[in-house]
Amino acid sequence: MTAVAPDPPVVAVLGGGQLGRMLGLAGVPLGVRCRFLDPGAGAPAAALGPLVVGPLGDEAALAQVAAGATVATYEWEGVPAAGARFLEARLPVRPGPAALDVAQDRLAEKDLFRRLGIGVADYVAVDDRRGLSAGLEAVGVPSILKTRRGGYDGKGQVVLRDRHDATLDAAWGELGAADGLILEAMVPFDRELSVLAVRGLDGETACYPLVENVHREGILRVSRAPAPRVDHALAKQAAALAGKLLDEFGYVGVLAVELFDVAGMLFANEIAPRVHNSGHWTIEGAETSQFENHLRAVLGWPLGSTAARDHSVMVNCIGEMPDREAVLAIPGAHLHDYGKEPRPNRKVGHVTITAPSSEELASRLDMLRPVIPSALG
Amino acid sequence: MTAVAPDPPVVAVLGGGQLGRMLGLAGVPLGVRCRFLDPGAGAPAAALGPLVVGPLGDEAALAQVAAGATVATYEWEGVPAAGARFLEARLPVRPGPAALDVAQDRLAEKDLFRRLGIGVADYVAVDDRRGLSAGLEAVGVPSILKTRRGGYDGKGQVVLRDRHDATLDAAWGELGAADGLILEAMVPFDRELSVLAVRGLDGETACYPLVENVHREGILRVSRAPAPRVDHALAKQAAALAGKLLDEFGYVGVLAVELFDVAGMLFANEIAPRVHNSGHWTIEGAETSQFENHLRAVLGWPLGSTAARDHSVMVNCIGEMPDREAVLAIPGAHLHDYGKEPRPNRKVGHVTITAPSSEELASRLDMLRPVIPSALG
Repeated sequence: MTAVAPDPPVVAVLGGGQLGRMLGLAGVPLGVRCRFLDPGAGAPAAALGPLVVGPLGDEAALAQVAAGATVATYEWEGVPAAGARFLEARLPVRPGPAALDVAQDRLAEKDLFRRLGIGVADYVAVDDRRGLSAGLEAVGVPSILKTRRGGYDGKGQVVLRDRHDATLDAAWGELGAADGLILEAMVPFDRELSVLAVRGLDGETACYPLVENVHREGILRVSRAPAPRVDHALAKQAAALAGKLLDEFGYVGVLAVELFDVAGMLFANEIAPRVHNSGHWTIEGAETSQFENHLRAVLGWPLGSTAARDHSVMVNCIGEMPDREAVLAIPGAHLHDYGKEPRPNRKVGHVTITAPSSEELASRLDMLRPVIPSALG
Repeated sequence: MTAVAPDPPVVAVLGGGQLGRMLGLAGVPLGVRCRFLDPGAGAPAAALGPLVVGPLGDEAALAQVAAGATVATYEWEGVPAAGARFLEARLPVRPGPAALDVAQDRLAEKDLFRRLGIGVADYVAVDDRRGLSAGLEAVGVPSILKTRRGGYDGKGQVVLRDRHDATLDAAWGELGAADGLILEAMVPFDRELSVLAVRGLDGETACYPLVENVHREGILRVSRAPAPRVDHALAKQAAALAGKLLDEFGYVGVLAVELFDVAGMLFANEIAPRVHNSGHWTIEGAETSQFENHLRAVLGWPLGSTAARDHSVMVNCIGEMPDREAVLAIPGAHLHDYGKEPRPNRKVGHVTITAPSSEELASRLDMLRPVIPSALG
């Protein structure tokens, strides 16, 4: 049973980065007020609602941001699960903290994929230097040694391309101090995709069209939606694996699953139990944005259509914002400035270009190329 | 010469109603901060930026909202022109106050239409009871006696359907105390249209597709865009008359012109030197919303495409908000809640429905009919 919602509904969001900012923006027209908890006083979401400044696991801060709220949610998968559980005694927390447990541990994540019959790269847990050698025998090269916890945007990873002891020693030297490692076979993928799915409180589910992603140095650079060359079988495969994950968690909200496409077979790489960078194109490119659908879901409201409108490409602005007027001069270009200080490798904004055809999209993207060379070379 | 803009740019908006709120929403992704001046502490725009509470003509309040801002603009044509002129000594005010002078005086407005060769109903200034009789001889019945200043949403108007002295006495009794009246022939229009045009700082202009509007009791109920049955000649006529007005004022920003369509001839009814209710559909229904284009224009940035995406209908929520979940369950429905207290005849929100075809739009609109009977009956 859900408590009767106050009106206007108030959503307590753990995390106040750009995802929180865009949740807040989606909330305003719906008559939804967002409130944020973030360690930083200059959090980008503060432009859209009250900000409680404090650690995401701090009980006093959690109690403050949740006081009187309708529901709590998060915009970062690194939110301490204990904090989310602390809140569960006070108000609905959606999605539930079990998704955080899995998303925060690469080993649990891969174990879950395997248990649900979802395609996954060979992997093995590594607990010590000897285990690394043994693991490499099982998994082969090339492979990637990763910390089980805390890695993001390419951090906490070492690629192993040979079996020499010196290589393994170096990798162990870099990561061995971490609290648990996992060695994963490198998937010889044709391309990276992601699926964004949403599940309502009543169990209704919907998927956005598959997105094709380009990462460089572990950071998402470009997303294209709908992904080209997606046949019915591939779309069905993606929807089926997303559906298994949503049902497993009794999930409520938007879930992102990063995928490898290997000759038409999908391998799951990781999940993000939140709105996702590869779904930013939905603001202009889909009938209902991922941010609005996340809010609809966690508030128990009907989901909106996830169908694409036109063709979209989303380009991240990494490190610094591009020249604003140069972006705005491009037909179909939509600028998103997160209001963050420039810093190397930091996501400070994105640009989505929409176009009525893939040819027109390619031509507009060519105009963007010299404006954001860091992403588009 | 324009002063170098601070970054992030700050726009001082005179008025803090729903139009200000939607300007503020459009500003966030662009990295634009809006600040508002409004007499009401609960102004809807306060959710999007700092609010100075004070009369729109108060010099201290005006100076406060404009301090350090890049540019000032307004979201209500009733802003005292003297206040806008006071600000002009301090920072760029766009559009310029001359558009306010005209928009605030129905006689000046009609005189301008006539001088520019824009179609306009017969009209005559009425200064006294005798002038009303003489005017009626010139203009005929049916006609409308209106206050020159201050009328909106159907207020300050009396329709005259006969020439009896008693009718004229009653009309004079109702409006004669106003500071100047105008008698206008009632145009036997086939339909009401509006054109939204935007002019950049460099003189670049663009028009959104014509919008078809339905008013009842003087209040806009429904807008449909692009308007059906618009041939090249009609679109050209609208663009030409809007262009004359933009050039006359050296206008910068979005200008709305309400029109009557009389067998393919356009008659101008009134202008609004601001973003306009009949342009709300552009948020989801156009490549660039009227709000974003207004900000781009007043900041001297390139304009965005005004092309329509799909077919749209916008329905005002008058007096109270409809059932939220019933709206959200309709495919393609986009809810806009202004966060205002319910009150009879007050615009408290709107719903835009988009659809890929006019047939699908009609079917979706049928679903909305029972949800907002006040607008769609």
